[in-house]
Amino acid sequence: MNEYQIEDEGCKEVIRGAHDAMDVLNGKWKIPIIAVLCFNKKRYSDILREVKGVSGKMLSRELKDMELNQLLKRTVLDTKPLTVQYELTEYGQKFKVVIEQLAIWGIEYRKEVTAK
Amino acid sequence: MNEYQIEDEGCKEVIRGAHDAMDVLNGKWKIPIIAVLCFNKKRYSDILREVKGVSGKMLSRELKDMELNQLLKRTVLDTKPLTVQYELTEYGQKFKVVIEQLAIWGIEYRKEVTAK
Repeated sequence: MNEYQIEDEGCKEVIRGAHDAMDVLNGKWKIPIIAVLCFNKKRYSDILREVKGVSGKMLSRELKDMELNQLLKRTVLDTKPLTVQYELTEYGQKFKVVIEQLAIWGIEYRKEVTAK
Repeated sequence: MNEYQIEDEGCKEVIRGAHDAMDVLNGKWKIPIIAVLCFNKKRYSDILREVKGVSGKMLSRELKDMELNQLLKRTVLDTKPLTVQYELTEYGQKFKVVIEQLAIWGIEYRKEVTAK
């Protein structure tokens, strides 16, 4: 057994857990969508504006997928015109700690890269 | 101003930081690759085996990309045959806290989904 083969169970569990998470969060857009919904429920048009670069078609597909996976909840409000509103479910809310850590890393990474 | 427009600066910074992070970590494979390298340096063949579903071509491309973005370091060891070894840089290591939070979420998500 060489040094590369030494892997404890905790390590494997982390790898598997991260894989599971990334399976649910596949694609380019789900993490940015959660980031945008982290602090507040939002209307479709707000999400479209705030998730930079996403197309309407792609956003609709992703939101549907995330609703099926119980990451977010869709509500149609009885306004004129109708308003469609999205918010994170309890599971989705729990992802906030990941987003926060990710953001801290992203901010630090930007600093390091722009300092060079 | 309605309730949807109320967003403080902290919120915007988190969204931007998460975006920055996801820009560097674009695609399906970089987060699983970091997860696999989190605990130890590894040989190319080990990474290929442990990152489930990745092709050799894709893995090489991703590793090169991550090396350019200073997330990992590549070392060629003078063995017979040559061994190529990858390890996380200091920045890459800092991503470990994100992976851990992601894994905790993934493990919990799996439990909730399989319990139903």
